[in-house]
Amino acid sequence: MTKWVYSFGDGKAEGESAMRNLLGGKGANLAEMSNLGLPVPPGFTITTEVCTAYYDNYQTYPDGLKDEVKAALEQVGAITGRGFGDSEKPLLVSVRSGARASMPGMMDTVLNLGLNDETVDALARDADDERFAYDSYRRFITMYSNVVLGVEHHAFEEALDRYKDEKGFSLDTELDAEDWKTLIQTYKKIVREEHGSDFPQGAEDQLWGAIGAVFDSWMIPRAKKYRELNAIPESWGTAVNVQAMVFGNMGDTSATGVAFTRNPSTGESALYGEFLINAQGEDVVAGIRTPQDITEKARLEAKSEKPSMEKAMPDSFAELTRIYGILEKHYRDMQDMEFTIENGKLWMLQTRNGKRTAKAALRIAVELAGEGLISKEEAIRRIEPGSLDQLLHPMIDPDAERTVIATGLPASPGAAVGEIVFNSEDAEAARKAERKCILVRIETSPEDIHGMHAAEGILTTRGGMTSHAAVVARGMGKPCVSGVGSIRIDYKAQTLTVGGKTLKAGDKLTIDGSTGQVIEGEVRMMEPELSGEFAALMEWADAYRTMKVRTNADTPTDARTARNFGAEGIGLCRTEHMFFEGDRIVAVREMILADDAEGRKAALAKIEPYQTDDFVELFMIMSGLPVTIRLLDPPLHEFLPHGDEDVREFAETVGVPEERIRARLKELKETNPMLGFRGCRLAIAYPEIAEMQARAILKAAAKAAEETSKPVTPEIMVPLVFTKAEFDIVKAAIDREAKKLGDTVAYQVGTMIELPRAALRSGEIAESAEFFSYGTNDLTQTALGISRDDAGTFLGAYTKAGIIPADPFVTIDRDGVGELVRISAERGRAKRQGIKLGICGEHGGDPASIAFCQEVGLDYVSCSPFRVPIARLAAAQAALGDGGKDG
Amino acid sequence: MTKWVYSFGDGKAEGESAMRNLLGGKGANLAEMSNLGLPVPPGFTITTEVCTAYYDNYQTYPDGLKDEVKAALEQVGAITGRGFGDSEKPLLVSVRSGARASMPGMMDTVLNLGLNDETVDALARDADDERFAYDSYRRFITMYSNVVLGVEHHAFEEALDRYKDEKGFSLDTELDAEDWKTLIQTYKKIVREEHGSDFPQGAEDQLWGAIGAVFDSWMIPRAKKYRELNAIPESWGTAVNVQAMVFGNMGDTSATGVAFTRNPSTGESALYGEFLINAQGEDVVAGIRTPQDITEKARLEAKSEKPSMEKAMPDSFAELTRIYGILEKHYRDMQDMEFTIENGKLWMLQTRNGKRTAKAALRIAVELAGEGLISKEEAIRRIEPGSLDQLLHPMIDPDAERTVIATGLPASPGAAVGEIVFNSEDAEAARKAERKCILVRIETSPEDIHGMHAAEGILTTRGGMTSHAAVVARGMGKPCVSGVGSIRIDYKAQTLTVGGKTLKAGDKLTIDGSTGQVIEGEVRMMEPELSGEFAALMEWADAYRTMKVRTNADTPTDARTARNFGAEGIGLCRTEHMFFEGDRIVAVREMILADDAEGRKAALAKIEPYQTDDFVELFMIMSGLPVTIRLLDPPLHEFLPHGDEDVREFAETVGVPEERIRARLKELKETNPMLGFRGCRLAIAYPEIAEMQARAILKAAAKAAEETSKPVTPEIMVPLVFTKAEFDIVKAAIDREAKKLGDTVAYQVGTMIELPRAALRSGEIAESAEFFSYGTNDLTQTALGISRDDAGTFLGAYTKAGIIPADPFVTIDRDGVGELVRISAERGRAKRQGIKLGICGEHGGDPASIAFCQEVGLDYVSCSPFRVPIARLAAAQAALGDGGKDG
Repeated sequence: MTKWVYSFGDGKAEGESAMRNLLGGKGANLAEMSNLGLPVPPGFTITTEVCTAYYDNYQTYPDGLKDEVKAALEQVGAITGRGFGDSEKPLLVSVRSGARASMPGMMDTVLNLGLNDETVDALARDADDERFAYDSYRRFITMYSNVVLGVEHHAFEEALDRYKDEKGFSLDTELDAEDWKTLIQTYKKIVREEHGSDFPQGAEDQLWGAIGAVFDSWMIPRAKKYRELNAIPESWGTAVNVQAMVFGNMGDTSATGVAFTRNPSTGESALYGEFLINAQGEDVVAGIRTPQDITEKARLEAKSEKPSMEKAMPDSFAELTRIYGILEKHYRDMQDMEFTIENGKLWMLQTRNGKRTAKAALRIAVELAGEGLISKEEAIRRIEPGSLDQLLHPMIDPDAERTVIATGLPASPGAAVGEIVFNSEDAEAARKAERKCILVRIETSPEDIHGMHAAEGILTTRGGMTSHAAVVARGMGKPCVSGVGSIRIDYKAQTLTVGGKTLKAGDKLTIDGSTGQVIEGEVRMMEPELSGEFAALMEWADAYRTMKVRTNADTPTDARTARNFGAEGIGLCRTEHMFFEGDRIVAVREMILADDAEGRKAALAKIEPYQTDDFVELFMIMSGLPVTIRLLDPPLHEFLPHGDEDVREFAETVGVPEERIRARLKELKETNPMLGFRGCRLAIAYPEIAEMQARAILKAAAKAAEETSKPVTPEIMVPLVFTKAEFDIVKAAIDREAKKLGDTVAYQVGTMIELPRAALRSGEIAESAEFFSYGTNDLTQTALGISRDDAGTFLGAYTKAGIIPADPFVTIDRDGVGELVRISAERGRAKRQGIKLGICGEHGGDPASIAFCQEVGLDYVSCSPFRVPIARLAAAQAALGDGGKDG
Repeated sequence: MTKWVYSFGDGKAEGESAMRNLLGGKGANLAEMSNLGLPVPPGFTITTEVCTAYYDNYQTYPDGLKDEVKAALEQVGAITGRGFGDSEKPLLVSVRSGARASMPGMMDTVLNLGLNDETVDALARDADDERFAYDSYRRFITMYSNVVLGVEHHAFEEALDRYKDEKGFSLDTELDAEDWKTLIQTYKKIVREEHGSDFPQGAEDQLWGAIGAVFDSWMIPRAKKYRELNAIPESWGTAVNVQAMVFGNMGDTSATGVAFTRNPSTGESALYGEFLINAQGEDVVAGIRTPQDITEKARLEAKSEKPSMEKAMPDSFAELTRIYGILEKHYRDMQDMEFTIENGKLWMLQTRNGKRTAKAALRIAVELAGEGLISKEEAIRRIEPGSLDQLLHPMIDPDAERTVIATGLPASPGAAVGEIVFNSEDAEAARKAERKCILVRIETSPEDIHGMHAAEGILTTRGGMTSHAAVVARGMGKPCVSGVGSIRIDYKAQTLTVGGKTLKAGDKLTIDGSTGQVIEGEVRMMEPELSGEFAALMEWADAYRTMKVRTNADTPTDARTARNFGAEGIGLCRTEHMFFEGDRIVAVREMILADDAEGRKAALAKIEPYQTDDFVELFMIMSGLPVTIRLLDPPLHEFLPHGDEDVREFAETVGVPEERIRARLKELKETNPMLGFRGCRLAIAYPEIAEMQARAILKAAAKAAEETSKPVTPEIMVPLVFTKAEFDIVKAAIDREAKKLGDTVAYQVGTMIELPRAALRSGEIAESAEFFSYGTNDLTQTALGISRDDAGTFLGAYTKAGIIPADPFVTIDRDGVGELVRISAERGRAKRQGIKLGICGEHGGDPASIAFCQEVGLDYVSCSPFRVPIARLAAAQAALGDGGKDG
């Protein structure tokens, strides 16, 4: 027969912390503390299986449950020397929910259960404190009526306020036992009116009412929503913990509090927390009274005049210190504890691994490893790689006030403050005038690169997590909030409007790229500082990981940033960004407007020296590390001027009729540019472009090798291949150029696998290609048929509705895109043993995707510079796998 | 040791027709005819392996070849009683190339080889005809110098003309032996001057010169180009045939001719051909003299006054008739024969399966089967399915003159004549005025459907074989030429310009959608007529095929046409086309402009009755056959007015501010609409659309079933699914509507597999989906990353350069898209045994793709109405497979 109830208390327990799935987090840890001999009020846990059975059977309880609860209650009574519902020595209990994972939104707690018109007197007698007893009773009625009977809180509050007004009281503490008695009558009347029947007097009725309320709260909309957002299965269910009451409100030798074994903000190894004398648990949370510090040190730092627990209750403080040591050693992690002191005796009500900031997590993990409590592997596993982002970017001071006027997608982390500008020219002008600015655009295009460089941060009203703005901003490490659909931009008026509010160019704006918030005005910022713990953890991670971490970098700044963050080469250098810089965009446009190969060659000849210098600089920065350079990829129309004004200006600059530019624009216009004339299709139609780039790369490699005395082996990458023949044509052109240059530089030619067909034909392609780099952005677009520029209209709704588990542009779609990568890797390796495999899509910086890369056995991941540390840690975690995980 | 030379003649041969790969087509058939005991001048074939060896070894001949040739020549000498180079009884030979496949562009023939200053006299003595001998010699010098030595033909022609002028001759026949002798001296001088050395006198030098010329011609650009276009591997090589000369130019008892065993234009079973008395083979081809008919019947029909061979040479005619009977029985196909009559004796120089028109092919195949010469299976195999197109559409009279002003893609077969109109409104106006017109557009959009209906044919200057214009035109069975890049359209001026020529609206234009030609003015047309043979062959095909053939039909007209062509249901009804018709486009736009679900529902309520009627009509026409209806698929912006004028007009019509329409247009604008907010994404965002369609389908099915007394089981198809969850949501909505209607109609819900991820996840999707239809158009776009609207810029170059074997939108890409279909079919069947599988992309009407569908085991193919007969035949051929193929 299934056991439904697990008892604990008196230095022993039927459960233990490993039984979290059955007993919930709270129940498992109460059992564990009992087993450790710590002072835990006795009680029992009704298992999560009861919850499941309850819902499987039309909200009825399984057979035997009532008997087991009764027996368990009797055992608690035996330990405490009291009886549940007993009119002489009544046993009062708390009833708390406790799911496997912490779940806000559900019914939380009912305290003082078991009180009724009879037992309240017994409690008064027993405690020799009538006010305490009736205070407890009115608390119980309020709480129970609210969470179990569904009577609104404010009904009781209004009655209380009215009473205080009548009596001329201002504080609750001014009410005495008689006052509470009077009010209790009023409360009972309220219950009768609102609920339709009397407040239950039977202790057993009360108990089953509370248990039912906990189970019912598992299915309320808020709880469902939370589970949906956090991918918690409904089938897990919640447990219910019933525990003998201990009273923190029994006068000045009683108290209640919460404490952390280490500082959850900084990670400092010191007891940290607060407590309230003569109070029950909910008073700490309610914030009616200001709690006191636990340690004297904290009191001094906070300049508080209220005594610390260390001073006020030295015995209890010593006991808490003893227990904290035991718990941290036992759980090998920072603990978040709840306790109550009843007449000088300390009782533990809860312990769990404490939540902490990224900074604290890092320090705690490294120090626990230093203290020998956990291994280095475990320290590596303890840090959520994505959380490192908080440490690398400026952030808004968490204590600062924010006037959030809109929320978009958290497209590139970090926060920025500046004046609003609506175009890239103004951004550059502001930069020159040393004024900080935020570039606000409907969307950005490659022509905005210089403006994005100049701005502190970028805000767009269209586009998703992988829109142009988002991708480029992440590459630059600049904060970006994208797709803020609620903001309307009027370029002409130079204003933005949101929720009836209009801001104009020059107004101050703050954006938080980590949360997607757009904030009016200037908010206080915090600059990032990288601690010694950060360096230590990164070093450990590097020792364990098996995949290399490269960076996607197009500029020397990117490359240097990435090197500082530990990048081991460049996995993707997009040469198109170079084409927009300075004067060369003019030559690029001349090339596009040329009528024949000769004209194109003449224009390319102007670009070649710049391009060569670009590569020399990158190779020098990378100093012998591998550098993958992708040949020109985007459709040519991206390089032409588009607006009437721009066309006119460019026509004047180069002395070409406007008509000609417009005609070419028309020719190059595409219905679906993503699937158009780009990638190696350009190299095949206009081989002179690829030839120029190949020459520039090879010459630069030779020069950099000479200057650094380190051999440079560039990896030339052919984009958008779907069949071997395309690759062969482009490779042949590259090889010809190398031959013309005397074959002096070793180089590799490989391809991006970014189309489903390329993934399927990887066997053949690997006959010629020396490496593959998975371009999972485009592979996602094509495999799922989703344009990332347009996905905003439905993708959010898709993830929200659970149609897909996550944004496939953020975390790789294992079942679709992932299978294509797997097939490709298998077929590629079968044909060319040990072929170098990497990933250079946005997924290269996403921990969940990095774990997938490890499974498939890629050689490296490549990500934007600011994600390099994240990738290093994620790669280490992926290499360590789940085996031996002890968290 | 490899045998390089195969002899034939004198009633026997070393080769046979089955050795076509080794001996080439001509050589194999010469051997076969010898074996059959037919009169073939003796000779030998130098194998194709010699050609391969020649190129593998830097253009040198393999060891032993010279000896084998010598021995073979001696054998020919022995049979003819002559000696090669002999000055008394010289053996003269012809040297002809002969590849495995007929290959225009290569060196063809050298006749009279072996003649020189000495042997010419012997020939004169032997024939007792000096003029004949010198005529032969001058022919030989001209031909050899031209094809072997590379001396331009006109040099000789000019000398001949000059000589005739001097002598006052007008015809060649006026020249006597002495004249030829004088000219031969001039010819030799020309050779010396042009070629740099004397005309070779040694017979053996002549022979090896000619053999070398044949092999060398295998690699000339024209030959390479032809192979490229016809997918003939270079490795096949050509054979060389050396054969004793027989002379048709030995006076009036000699002649030469070509004959077909059946009429190659009509297929009529009657000897058909022409001949020339006292002539050599090249004279027939050269067209200097008008040839005479072979049969008396033909002479009478042609009203020729020159006697037929039947009358003029009755013995030879009888012999030819005898041989024709033998050959046709032997080869079991219509033969194309070459013969020469030397002094009354008929010699066969060649036989091969004759080329024929589609109409003739059909009649011949059916009649051969009727005669018991071939089986029905063989008759089915003999017809190229694509050739049926010629029979189903009007075509340009092949004898009519054409002034081709441009050539585009043959996007939809058939020809059309009409006056030029530049927009759909003008097309409709012309139609109303009963004037035929050709709709000329840069590209078409769904708004042009009514104009396309009104026009006789469509011409676009942009877009490929699967552009909107092409797809819709094929669906309508209207001729279309697409992507005519050389034509510039000026909508404002109402003109089109091409090659310096300007045509204006109202000018007559003819387009040939079978060839892609655009022709100025009005050209004579021929209407299609479907023969009894067509019906017979279709019936046989139906008996053998295992796949069903359905049609893609959106309108009653399409559905009726397809039914007439034998369609067995509708595989794809695109409901979006219905949304454009008549007044309902106004309601559709109201729906798109609505602010909320209620507004959309109100607009949809107006559309529902129309939509229901649409479906009733389709179900009635299909009378119980399966009908697959796809839910609304295209992005919503396609339905909104776009041009300023249209927006203004629509705004006035419905009384909505222009601004609102523009705003919505902006909202719906997409960078890559192909990968955007469409397909089931619409159904998920706006369930009311799918609900309305489901109701209309189910109500219509009930009504049609009642009226026809045949059960209608509609197949409702959810488009653009990439994950099961999407499908489930839409299916649930459909099921809900069915329930509301009382679940009175049986229906199936399935999905289009048109995204790579859907193909990969087919196992899961098949858990819910009752059928799959492969949308290989979109699957090709996504798997290869090619937008079919934009592919024109590079796809042509890709097929031309052999990067891909064929346009992947025409013939399915087996290696990429094909593998996805295979994977999907396997996984789908593994989960749902016997799941119904079909194809509804353009590939469903392409024979090569249909063969693929058979391999994968699809249940049906669906294609545009006019391709239904092609698909029926192709499906039969696919079912028959290659086994037992005897052609």
